[in-house]
Amino acid sequence: MDTSLLIPDSTDTRPALTDGTVSASPGADAVPDAGASRMPLYRKLAEHYQGAIQAGTLVVGDRMPSVRDLMRQHQVSLSTSLQTLRHMEEGGWLEARPRSGYFVRQPRRSAIRPVQEPKSLMAIDPAQYVGIHEKVSKYIALRQKCAPRIDLSGMTCAPELYAVDTLKQAAMRALREHPELLTSAMPHNGNQGFRQAVARRALNAGMRIDADEVVVTHGCIEALNLALRAVAGPGDTIAVESPTYFGLLQALENLGMRALEIPTSPHTGISAEALELAVRTYGNIKAVVVVPNLQNPLGCIMPDVNKDKLVRLCEELHLPLIEDDAYTELADGNVAPSTLKSRDRSGNVIYCASLNKVLAPGMRLGWMNGGRWHERVMMLKFTHTRANEEWTQITAADFLASPAYDRHLRRLRELLKEQRERMAESIAAYFPEGTRLTVPSGGVGMWVELPSQVCSQRLFEQALVEGVGVSPGAIFSNSNRYGHFLRICCGHPFTRELDQALRQLGQIGHSLAA
Amino acid sequence: MDTSLLIPDSTDTRPALTDGTVSASPGADAVPDAGASRMPLYRKLAEHYQGAIQAGTLVVGDRMPSVRDLMRQHQVSLSTSLQTLRHMEEGGWLEARPRSGYFVRQPRRSAIRPVQEPKSLMAIDPAQYVGIHEKVSKYIALRQKCAPRIDLSGMTCAPELYAVDTLKQAAMRALREHPELLTSAMPHNGNQGFRQAVARRALNAGMRIDADEVVVTHGCIEALNLALRAVAGPGDTIAVESPTYFGLLQALENLGMRALEIPTSPHTGISAEALELAVRTYGNIKAVVVVPNLQNPLGCIMPDVNKDKLVRLCEELHLPLIEDDAYTELADGNVAPSTLKSRDRSGNVIYCASLNKVLAPGMRLGWMNGGRWHERVMMLKFTHTRANEEWTQITAADFLASPAYDRHLRRLRELLKEQRERMAESIAAYFPEGTRLTVPSGGVGMWVELPSQVCSQRLFEQALVEGVGVSPGAIFSNSNRYGHFLRICCGHPFTRELDQALRQLGQIGHSLAA
Repeated sequence: MDTSLLIPDSTDTRPALTDGTVSASPGADAVPDAGASRMPLYRKLAEHYQGAIQAGTLVVGDRMPSVRDLMRQHQVSLSTSLQTLRHMEEGGWLEARPRSGYFVRQPRRSAIRPVQEPKSLMAIDPAQYVGIHEKVSKYIALRQKCAPRIDLSGMTCAPELYAVDTLKQAAMRALREHPELLTSAMPHNGNQGFRQAVARRALNAGMRIDADEVVVTHGCIEALNLALRAVAGPGDTIAVESPTYFGLLQALENLGMRALEIPTSPHTGISAEALELAVRTYGNIKAVVVVPNLQNPLGCIMPDVNKDKLVRLCEELHLPLIEDDAYTELADGNVAPSTLKSRDRSGNVIYCASLNKVLAPGMRLGWMNGGRWHERVMMLKFTHTRANEEWTQITAADFLASPAYDRHLRRLRELLKEQRERMAESIAAYFPEGTRLTVPSGGVGMWVELPSQVCSQRLFEQALVEGVGVSPGAIFSNSNRYGHFLRICCGHPFTRELDQALRQLGQIGHSLAA
Repeated sequence: MDTSLLIPDSTDTRPALTDGTVSASPGADAVPDAGASRMPLYRKLAEHYQGAIQAGTLVVGDRMPSVRDLMRQHQVSLSTSLQTLRHMEEGGWLEARPRSGYFVRQPRRSAIRPVQEPKSLMAIDPAQYVGIHEKVSKYIALRQKCAPRIDLSGMTCAPELYAVDTLKQAAMRALREHPELLTSAMPHNGNQGFRQAVARRALNAGMRIDADEVVVTHGCIEALNLALRAVAGPGDTIAVESPTYFGLLQALENLGMRALEIPTSPHTGISAEALELAVRTYGNIKAVVVVPNLQNPLGCIMPDVNKDKLVRLCEELHLPLIEDDAYTELADGNVAPSTLKSRDRSGNVIYCASLNKVLAPGMRLGWMNGGRWHERVMMLKFTHTRANEEWTQITAADFLASPAYDRHLRRLRELLKEQRERMAESIAAYFPEGTRLTVPSGGVGMWVELPSQVCSQRLFEQALVEGVGVSPGAIFSNSNRYGHFLRICCGHPFTRELDQALRQLGQIGHSLAA
């Protein structure tokens, strides 16, 4: 048995526990809110048994060790072993049978069928282009007007999931150490320390990017706009995934560019074959925008072999490849999936990153590397918004360079995984027959396929009236093929209210399916 | 005699003095760096006599009261009266004659001839369009490479001219009062308090702008980009002043728009007649961009009658009028010149403001009102950079709403005026025969016309080698008509080094004029 569990009982207030040893990571006390290893023992125990169920060591119907068994076998307290069993039951792993204890059951979510693969390899003819603004503006306006009680429409996490105090301290420190920070003109290309910090992290992720070739931006969306303007102009066509982030479709429309939607698997991402077919069919494709890891809204991660293929294909076709990387560090587990940029040998990949979801939603920090278009990207950035203010950059650099940042990421990933599973369990329980869901292995969103007769726009509107916000599938494409999909945010701690909100969504779904 | 001078002697450390009474403005102590009324007595005395010279009460050649006269008449100390006379001598108002005291003289700058009016009313045919990027990029690259010891090329003031401590305190307060500020997603349209604060100040400036119709931007440059994209598209022509801010010419080129330069008087601003002529001559002019107050680089302020005329003309022509207002609050005196927006009755004026020069260069805060294009501006802002982070907005709102802000502005205006006059005096003394300068009544820059044979691009390059940065006239136009102009920043305290730098510029000018 895993020795990590043969340890004395612990509570949240005790020293951090990882792999059975007491963590001595420096500054662990200084950053109480960023301690991934502060995972309470009952959850470590629960994960231990959940792993056994997933591995088939325990099968459906097996009796789970009793409260006393757990206390004895793992030398934990009564409360810990009770918490363990309840936690597993809430997660859908166990069912309690009166007077006979807990038994292993299949989580409901594992019974739900996966989202379907696209039916054809043919791209959506850009002639189908139907201005996205109207759809999106209506969506945003409604959301603002109704101000939902529980808003699952965005892709940001609850504030408390981030390193609130650590960041605040870093911000205060920045002001103390640089008294004239707010009244001094900014350096032409952002803060050197911040550019070094992100370049160093990129290096660890297999990307060789010189700090001088980092362009700091206002979130990933500015980076995308700059990337698009660097390689294409009005009237040009840009290949995108289908479905894709509505913000990208909006940006394209604003820049007078046309989106060509390439069939994209909800499990393996954009199809290189379909992309090649499209490029050979339509002459004027000037670039392709891809989210290889935890695609928005699909949540899929491209297999490495597909990433290799895509990067090589774009090089052969001399097709600029714009990588949108906002979620990679939110992938489950402690080894992040690889980026397309890490495969770039010719500067053909423009890498756009965001710290908005991983570091802090309130800082709007993004950055990019323009590949062989670096000079033009720099000029466009300067011309449109000048350099970002240094305050946030110095604050972020401070945090990024500290061990607290990785502890924060570990904790964030664990919390998101749990929230995702709890929500998926509720969706499986409440949503109408025929609902499909592929629970992503990371990230902040889930892409839910409802029975085809359900109009998710109507569901969105009815849910808003009941105080629940979601994103209807229609805004993720210029075509109408996602009219029965929903994107649901899992960035909020799972609560009874959240469960109730999902129940409401399910009920509306049932009524629309009838 | 002005009783404000019949007061006991004072020093910088004594309570604030204004109009003869001890200032009791609340929080004056809390904001030591923002006290306009902390002007030392010797400078109040000097201004008193300078006013008399300008009014003709004292004329050139008159003997100035002696040190002892001043001590007796104004009941000031020996050091104060000595300082007063030296300060006036440094400012070019007095000359010291050995063994006979100080005598009134005409400041050198008053002898220098004004910058010439444009020769014709004809706009510069956009066919002359010669892509500004190359010029500007070369200029920026050189400046960065050489990192001048004394940089007079920008338009920002030295950090110490701003309310360093007050802003820092406000920033700390923002973090303490909003612990989750950095980790919470931003409201869709910026911070409500900030929008209210700027709307309130706009109201005092005669502009009725609803806080909900304020769009917060990353400096004025983003506001300008959004304004241009709201009313025009690639291929369209935009009328601009000639000369105009190179950042605007860059933005236009990036957006695929063409700049049509309208003749602009260095004293009364853009010519409405020339604009009307241009609109009737060229069909495709989609908007006009104007800096009515302290135009960059000219420094001129449009007379009210010209402002009325321009706003009416644009309404008649259905020509969107984009107002760039970055400097108005830096105009000399305590009554700011009026804006074009304050004359807008039909929503035809898009107002773009910057707090970059007046509040703090390190915060990159701008805002705008889209007039009747508000909805489109909102959408474009959302699509390009989303909402600005709240941290700086809350910090700024705190300061804007306090009396410390107006004290800061008064002080800033006084310091700039003095710096401008000292620098103009040096320019008059050191620059070659035939140099022309109209000292602007406010702002951060001076537009210097050198003898026509002097190539300011070469002057710029040679000065850089000697460690002095300036802006060559060529980058302020797509035409070549400003090749013998310089824009010189007067945002830095006048020091011996600064005087020396101007002497160097003068010497290079002489060598190039020969």
